[in-house]
Amino acid sequence: MKDVEKVYRHIDDNIESHIGKMQRLLRQPSVSQTGEGMEEIVVLLKEWLEELGCGLVEAVKPEFYWPIVYGEYDAGAEKTVIIYGMYDVQPVEERLWEVPPFEARLVERLPFKKVVMCRGATNTKGPMAASLNALESIQQAAGELPVNVLFVLEGEEEMGSRSMPGFVERYKDKLSRADGVYFPIGSQDQNGLARPMLGSEGLVYIELETSGRSWGRGPTEFGVHGAYKRILDSPAWRHVEMLSTLVSDGGNEINVEGWYDDIAVPTDEDRELLEKGYRESIPAAEVFDPGLIKESMKVRHFKWDMEEPAEILSELIFSTSFNLDGIWGGWTGPGTKTFLPTKVTSKHNIRFVPRQSMEGLTRKIREHLDRHGYEDVELRKLAGYSWGLGRHRDPVAEALYDAFEEFGCRYSINPPVGAFQFNSPAWPAYVFLDEPLSLPIVGGSLGHGALAHSPNEYYVIEGCDARYGVVHGLAGAEKSMASFLYHFASR
Amino acid sequence: MKDVEKVYRHIDDNIESHIGKMQRLLRQPSVSQTGEGMEEIVVLLKEWLEELGCGLVEAVKPEFYWPIVYGEYDAGAEKTVIIYGMYDVQPVEERLWEVPPFEARLVERLPFKKVVMCRGATNTKGPMAASLNALESIQQAAGELPVNVLFVLEGEEEMGSRSMPGFVERYKDKLSRADGVYFPIGSQDQNGLARPMLGSEGLVYIELETSGRSWGRGPTEFGVHGAYKRILDSPAWRHVEMLSTLVSDGGNEINVEGWYDDIAVPTDEDRELLEKGYRESIPAAEVFDPGLIKESMKVRHFKWDMEEPAEILSELIFSTSFNLDGIWGGWTGPGTKTFLPTKVTSKHNIRFVPRQSMEGLTRKIREHLDRHGYEDVELRKLAGYSWGLGRHRDPVAEALYDAFEEFGCRYSINPPVGAFQFNSPAWPAYVFLDEPLSLPIVGGSLGHGALAHSPNEYYVIEGCDARYGVVHGLAGAEKSMASFLYHFASR
Repeated sequence: MKDVEKVYRHIDDNIESHIGKMQRLLRQPSVSQTGEGMEEIVVLLKEWLEELGCGLVEAVKPEFYWPIVYGEYDAGAEKTVIIYGMYDVQPVEERLWEVPPFEARLVERLPFKKVVMCRGATNTKGPMAASLNALESIQQAAGELPVNVLFVLEGEEEMGSRSMPGFVERYKDKLSRADGVYFPIGSQDQNGLARPMLGSEGLVYIELETSGRSWGRGPTEFGVHGAYKRILDSPAWRHVEMLSTLVSDGGNEINVEGWYDDIAVPTDEDRELLEKGYRESIPAAEVFDPGLIKESMKVRHFKWDMEEPAEILSELIFSTSFNLDGIWGGWTGPGTKTFLPTKVTSKHNIRFVPRQSMEGLTRKIREHLDRHGYEDVELRKLAGYSWGLGRHRDPVAEALYDAFEEFGCRYSINPPVGAFQFNSPAWPAYVFLDEPLSLPIVGGSLGHGALAHSPNEYYVIEGCDARYGVVHGLAGAEKSMASFLYHFASR
Repeated sequence: MKDVEKVYRHIDDNIESHIGKMQRLLRQPSVSQTGEGMEEIVVLLKEWLEELGCGLVEAVKPEFYWPIVYGEYDAGAEKTVIIYGMYDVQPVEERLWEVPPFEARLVERLPFKKVVMCRGATNTKGPMAASLNALESIQQAAGELPVNVLFVLEGEEEMGSRSMPGFVERYKDKLSRADGVYFPIGSQDQNGLARPMLGSEGLVYIELETSGRSWGRGPTEFGVHGAYKRILDSPAWRHVEMLSTLVSDGGNEINVEGWYDDIAVPTDEDRELLEKGYRESIPAAEVFDPGLIKESMKVRHFKWDMEEPAEILSELIFSTSFNLDGIWGGWTGPGTKTFLPTKVTSKHNIRFVPRQSMEGLTRKIREHLDRHGYEDVELRKLAGYSWGLGRHRDPVAEALYDAFEEFGCRYSINPPVGAFQFNSPAWPAYVFLDEPLSLPIVGGSLGHGALAHSPNEYYVIEGCDARYGVVHGLAGAEKSMASFLYHFASR
């Protein structure tokens, strides 16, 4: 029996224990934005890397918020892979969950007999645990890993990975030994089609705040009785007016001057990949099913009443957006407190594409505000990544296609910036792709999860048959991760 | 010694115990919008009315939220006064208070040696307690009250007094025995000038809500990952756009069609009173000091950069306003959750004047929304009063001027709809003024408080000299209430 087959059997034979190890990780809350459970999960991860036999394991002190768990595993192999992972998750809104959000309960969610429902299940503690389980099975069934591994597990992904660039700079000598970067995440949608992740869109997250204090008008220090609106200006209404200058058509058009100027996608290569595919992949344009999005997100219409799948797909991959994530100010409790607030704040995540830049867009927003007389409105940048462009012919990517083909899994390749994988996160691919590392990257595996950032997030434990073949559960996910490493080692 | 002088001495001799009784009432939280302490305060008030010797005391079951404490005191007198009071208060924002907001702490607040700082201190549990103290001193020093009293103490004033009209209808036979209505509240500003309250502006409080569910676009049931803004409409941006159609110039111009049509103030009589005054009053236009508002509310500019006191006063008294009291939706916690919300809600208190009507304005807002394509935006009316127009020559009002003049207190009479007394609430004057009761009303007394609805609300216990004479403390307030009742009895 070949090594890799022993590994697959070991995974099958030990799947119950693997589920347990994954649940242990999921049950430990790790909400970077509130700090809940962050210290505890770092301890858990360090223990796990030590058990795997890493020669070096450290929690690297972050420049900003939370440590990067860094580990080195030397298999004496020719090739080295960086496994990138994120151990932090988004906050939860308890009352909208069908199960306690950190219980990692195994439930039926048709068509799946068994999923684990938990914040972080698919994004991305579930797949990260699967990769660690896979490595353990390789060690125990085959004796040694086919590649050396450097683990880079960060705890600030949901806050914009601000400590990552500095970490890469400080660890560049160690990290540059690698031949490629792998991000374990479920690639299959609920039809069974897999989509490897070859890059990342750009993301910048800002807050805008209008206050009497900085405006110098209306109540400047505290909110006052609402009846004074008769003679006082309102910072709250000013915030609404300011926001209404930024976009139109319900946020579908961005009115910031020069916003769209630097967009350089799609390229001819992007379009070719989209329309013709590569290797055995199904062209993305052929398989894109807007109905899946409608169904999973309870959506009846797309913006502009788009109905052509190709147009929707193109917007999903290549367009830029200026979202209103949240807004608050004044009296937000029950009843009828009459109140003239001194401040309103809103949150905005902005998605951008090559060759727009984070600094350029932030500057253009500032200039827009100033030009429209809102010099006093505060713009706070909370987080941001640049976009990252992998190449669909890189060896790490080819090794993942090898794994998909080995398991008969149909796959479709989005153009690199189309990292937006329906339920996978933007991620700091650029820190690996750009100088000084210039490493190829890929993300993906068999397996499926959904509802990242939403209530009832889940990751499939027991798969089922679907339109494009099997939607794999945890065992399939782990096997494909092992397969990827063997294929990469032999390329 | 005349009866009334014995009463004044009794008040002075018992002021410490009167302070204690007032603190007992203030320390009992009574937040109608959350329900905190509402049952307990009803018990306290019933006990107090029973101690005063009311023949009938009942907590009248409300149509909407909280009981009306009703009491009848028969002094065998010729005249009968309804004492209207409100026992509910606004919610508090703990962290902005210098003292615990329900401790009723006695503190120095220059120029006042002693104030009681507490939610409800001035609006209006403090003055209500003062009136009950005054009645007790009359009984103990003079033997009997000069008037019969009907107590109408409601617990929904801060929620729009919704149960009051039905109560008046059911109790009209009892209430119509009265010759006038009195609302105990501090009339003096910090310069020592008193302003009797002769009516009330109109108030309507609404919520507006934009949701994917009712719009049928964007995420319809729950918020989704913020990256989907690329292909989905945003109910949150739609709410901002909808709000921005309602007003312009930072909320200073109301764009709702026909909004200003029915305004019939100021009348010639209003202008005459404003400019020339009545009896010994100082004309309102002469004494209005915008600097006081600026100082107490930390305001540097009025809307439109108004600087003429007459113009500011006119806007304060006769203008209508559409305020943005609060707004919320989406992710409002810390950090960078990327989220496309399914719903945003905002709260609005609207002040209106004769002959605008609550029903008319609410209908015009609805029509505006419909006409601008926002048929799906939900408009919820939470509360509302009509305006109430007292007459400045009514006997109850004359009796209050008598009391002011007796104590050498300078006063200024705003036109009736100018009930907006710098720190006093809108109140349901209309339920007494209108059919079926058609009773004259007045509100006021010596004494001063400020910061109603704001942190560190206070009511003066020990007064001081000021520009227009003495700013009276609690003893002066109580004496003026007793004086008012004697003057009213003898008119």
